[in-house]
Parts: sequence; structure tokens; C-alpha cells
Amino acid sequence: MLKVTVIAAGSWGTALALVLEQNGHDVTVWARRESQVQDILQSRRNDKYLRNIAIPENIQFTSSLQEAVKHTEVIVLSVPTQQLNNVLEQMAEQITLSHRVIMVNVSKGIDMGSLELPSQMVMRYYPTQPFVVLSGPSHAEEVALKLPTALVAASKNRLAAEIVQDLFSNDYMRVYTNPDVVGVEISGALKNIIALGAGISDGLGYGDNAKAALITRGINEMVVLGQMIGAETSTFRGLAGVGDLIVTCTSQHSRNRRCGILIGEGLSFDNAIESVGMVVEGAYTVKAAYRLMTKLKIDMPITKVLYRVLYEGKNAREAVNYLMTRQKKHEIDENAEKLELWQ
Amino acid sequence: MLKVTVIAAGSWGTALALVLEQNGHDVTVWARRESQVQDILQSRRNDKYLRNIAIPENIQFTSSLQEAVKHTEVIVLSVPTQQLNNVLEQMAEQITLSHRVIMVNVSKGIDMGSLELPSQMVMRYYPTQPFVVLSGPSHAEEVALKLPTALVAASKNRLAAEIVQDLFSNDYMRVYTNPDVVGVEISGALKNIIALGAGISDGLGYGDNAKAALITRGINEMVVLGQMIGAETSTFRGLAGVGDLIVTCTSQHSRNRRCGILIGEGLSFDNAIESVGMVVEGAYTVKAAYRLMTKLKIDMPITKVLYRVLYEGKNAREAVNYLMTRQKKHEIDENAEKLELWQ
Repeated sequence: MLKVTVIAAGSWGTALALVLEQNGHDVTVWARRESQVQDILQSRRNDKYLRNIAIPENIQFTSSLQEAVKHTEVIVLSVPTQQLNNVLEQMAEQITLSHRVIMVNVSKGIDMGSLELPSQMVMRYYPTQPFVVLSGPSHAEEVALKLPTALVAASKNRLAAEIVQDLFSNDYMRVYTNPDVVGVEISGALKNIIALGAGISDGLGYGDNAKAALITRGINEMVVLGQMIGAETSTFRGLAGVGDLIVTCTSQHSRNRRCGILIGEGLSFDNAIESVGMVVEGAYTVKAAYRLMTKLKIDMPITKVLYRVLYEGKNAREAVNYLMTRQKKHEIDENAEKLELWQ
Repeated sequence: MLKVTVIAAGSWGTALALVLEQNGHDVTVWARRESQVQDILQSRRNDKYLRNIAIPENIQFTSSLQEAVKHTEVIVLSVPTQQLNNVLEQMAEQITLSHRVIMVNVSKGIDMGSLELPSQMVMRYYPTQPFVVLSGPSHAEEVALKLPTALVAASKNRLAAEIVQDLFSNDYMRVYTNPDVVGVEISGALKNIIALGAGISDGLGYGDNAKAALITRGINEMVVLGQMIGAETSTFRGLAGVGDLIVTCTSQHSRNRRCGILIGEGLSFDNAIESVGMVVEGAYTVKAAYRLMTKLKIDMPITKVLYRVLYEGKNAREAVNYLMTRQKKHEIDENAEKLELWQ
């Protein structure tokens, strides 16, 4: 049994807390607002984020960060990426250097200000603590219902990765280890952008063929960025890459996709965001990835086009048509030379 | 303008004939049964395979193979793979060695008898003709409605690939070239197996997480087989690989997936096939891929498990649970050594 702290009581944080409790760990969930803590303690449910799921008495809730992290052995960070820096700063006062704790990040994105991935932010505050990113195709709702799910625990530290693997594994959840932290993080960040694009395609009334083409081009975009910052290309065809992309781009649960559908149907970006009503991480990630792409001088067409649609008012139909009709003759440029001239 | 013959008037052959006619080519479609030819000529529709689509007068239909291939410059083969050998044998008498024609195959599978891929079958009959495989995420129904679609034309012959690219490209259809014929063919064959598995997962009531995990494992299975027979791994993350896999595994149009859903819901394999009512290519491909896997001494867990379910009466729920809970610790074994021991 380990003492585990889950930071923030959103849908994913709550679902993972349920798994940890079922696996016999001592779980404390921190929520920012004391009113949310009181609501959950009273009803033993978190209906705003995870409907109709009973939360066992064993899981503790608190709005005191100090209390939440005291003597903890594992911290599971599930705050939206744009708030991560802020939470890390608050936490830094509570955790001394002698306090050995595994930092596990489960949220996805790129910080808009610093253009850092979550691992880079965490390592800036906790350079000596082991870091693990947990990712993969995982609707919180399905995990809470104990439906079969497979995840990836990526870390440079074998032991930390294996501890996280054991922490979450049970008969409905499989966790695989992978050393490629940045590959997993890029996958998780960019998939939200691609889901926005897939949603726009759906909202415009295009079909499965167009959406599949867009998703496939999205994987290439992950590869292009990944190759620049040392990711393994094989990660993108794994659970955190293709796996998570499929779930996010084809499911009704995805907020990013829903936001895209509304934009495709003609809503303005602001109205679409308002209508979805929860954090649409992809909308921030588009901005961060666009800046990163510009900084690294690489071509990421989906990111670029969505940036224009969301932040420069470009017409969504023209944008998707542009993506579908770009002049590009070979599927994978590096392989083109293998085409032999007809004798 | 080229003279193009489409072999067989199924849904995909008919949809591609429509594209070719719109692109200004001289199109003849061969159908095996004279009664189907007469039905189509009378109604200018092919409602059994492609509902509510008008077929222009310019497209010719015939049940005479001799007439169909006379003076033709491109033959588009869209017969089910298990019938391909038979059709090639009939055609062999009509096409002399001096008759230069590009052979384009658009159907997906592995021959159960010879364990050959379509390219290998065609090359046995036509060793001197250029061969192109056209594949990618493409519901015929959507192509017929002119919804945006992207495909791959794979060939060792650059000119042949580019001719096929030009033949089908227009404002709603993009075609990319790729030299990796076997990679594209393996993708097309195995995706039907994986769609069967994804359907079973859906039929059992599992969610998006489980299905995405299964699809992701399916890509690994393509990679394992592909590495044995000289495919480029990058092909599997392209349109013919991941792209087509996504469309087939998540859409209601797919017969393979529908067959799997029925099996997951408790129907026997025979009853499921009967209920779908059309060719379920994946059911044949499972058998062929299982034999190929055994012959090559490689491990393809999804293929193996589905073979047991379809042909040896193994329980579907146990089979999928087995796939989800197999003992495997690292996502990509070759990368596992990069995990460093915790200092």
C-alpha cells in the first residue's frame, strides 16, 4: 500500500482515485475549492465531473495542499496544463528536498507561456524527484465503470515507471512502461488539436474518409515535432499516440471534438467554447504548438490552419479544404526515392 | 483520356467507376452476371451495392470479359481477394503479352489457398505489366457522394503510380504515391481482422478505451508481419495503415465490424455471416493470416485469438479478455532497454 495524493478532483483525477482505492492504496484527493470538497464529502459523488459514480468513504478529500501532500509517496497531477505551473509553485513550499515522492502527470498539453511540456515544468520545480507521465486512450467515464483500459507509464526511471505500473494495474486496467517521456507528452498534447480538426470536419458534414485522412495527417505532425525534440517515432503508433488519437477523434465524450463540431457547424470559436462549458485544452494547445512550430521552424499544417481558424477568424470550410487539397505527391517523402522509374 | 476497365460492379468498383468517368476517362465496368448488367443498364443505378446513386450513361457495362478488356489501358481489379485468382485466370486468355496495361488492385486480403497477397497473384499472371495497389480510408458510399477522400497509390513503378494518381485525383479525391506495395497490402488485409476484433469488443459492451487499445495492438501486428516480408514500418502509420484501420473499426458501414458486433452479442460465426449478407473479407483473412503467421513463426495475438473464436468455437468474451490481460510489461520491447535504473 502506498500513500497517494491526487491533485484536483476533475473527471480523470476522480476516476484514477477510484482505481487507486480499489487497488488498496491510501488515497487523498486535493480540490481547490473547499465548497467542492464539502459537496463530495456530503454526497460521496462528484456529479459535476463524473456522473452517477459512488465514491468510497476510504478516499479522503481536502482543499489544503499542505495536508494533501504530507507524507505522500506519489503525487498524481491531473490539473489542466495551463494551471500546472501555478499548482507546482504552490506545492513547492510544501515538499522539501528530502521528501522522496514520485511525480505522475496525467494531464495533456503544452504551457502557452513557457512552451514547456508538463515534464519540463515538473522537472523545473522537482529536478531530483522521479517523473512519470501516464497516458493512453482513456475516457474517465469508462474507467469509473471498470471497462477494460490500457495505458502507458513513461519515465526515464525504470523503477518509478514500474511502481506506477503496479499502482494502477488490475483486472480491467493494463499499464505498459515506455522510456519515451516526450513522445508520450507530444502525443497527448497534439491529439487535442487533431480532435478539434476532426470535429470541424464532422461539423462541416464531411464523412469518415475525410476524418480518417485528417487523423492520419495528424500522426505525421506528431512525428515531425517529435523528431525535433528527441521522441521515438514508434511511440506515436502506440497507445498514447494512435490509441488516444482514435478515442479522442471518434468519441462523443471528447470536449475538443465537440468544440470542433460546433465550429464546423458555424459557431464562432468563443461561442463554441462557451457552449462546451468545460476546459477545451486543444484550444490552448493550438496556440502553444503554433508558437513552438514557429520557433523550431517546422511545418505543422493542421496546427497552423487551426490557429488561423480559432485566432484569426479564417473560414473553417476553406481551412479544411486547404488541408485536404494541399499539393503533396508522396505519402512519406523519405521513401519517395524508392519509387523506381518505369522501364 | 485513358481507356479504363473496372473488374466487377460491387460498391467500391462502382464508386471508382464514377470517379473515373467524372475525371473524363472512357470507363467500362465488367460484371459477372449478365442479369446485373441488364439491371444497371435499365435503371442506371446499382442499388444492391450503392444505393440512390445515378450512374451516368457514359459508363459502359458488360458481362463479356473479352469485350471489357479489349484495347484497355488500365484494369482496376475490385473483386474479393478469394475470387481474384479465378478472375485473373479468365482474363489471362484475353490479354496478350504485347498488350501494355497497368494493373490496379483495389481489394484487400490474403488468398486462403496460396497465402499470396494480391500483388503476388497479379504478378504471377502478368509479370511484365506494371502493378499498382490503391488503398486508404474510403467508404464507397462517401466517395459516390463526392465527400473528401485521400488514398495511396503504391507501386514500384514511379510512372505507373503517377498515372494512377492522376487518374483518380480531383477536387474531392487526393491520391498520394508510395513505393511500399506489400506494406499497403498487409495494412489492407489485417485491418479487416482487427475490425472484426473491434466489433466483438463493441458487441460485448466494452467501451472506446478497450477498442482503441485493441486497434493499437493491431498496428503492432501489422508491423510484426510487415518486418518479416520487407514492408516499410512508416506505411502502417499512413493512410492505408492507421487511416483505413480507423475508418473500418469505428464506422457502421464496415461489414467486418458488423460481423464482429454480432459475434460479441452472442451469435455464432455462421449466423453472423448470414446476417451480414455480404462478403466478410476479414473472416477469410483471419484464416490466411493465421496460416501465414504459423508458417513464418511469428506472434500475432489478435489473429490467433480470432482464429480460435471463428473456427474453433472459443468464447468471444474470454478471447478479448485474454487480449486485454496478456502479460506484457513494455509497450515497445526494443525500447525497453532505454529505461534507466532509478539511481
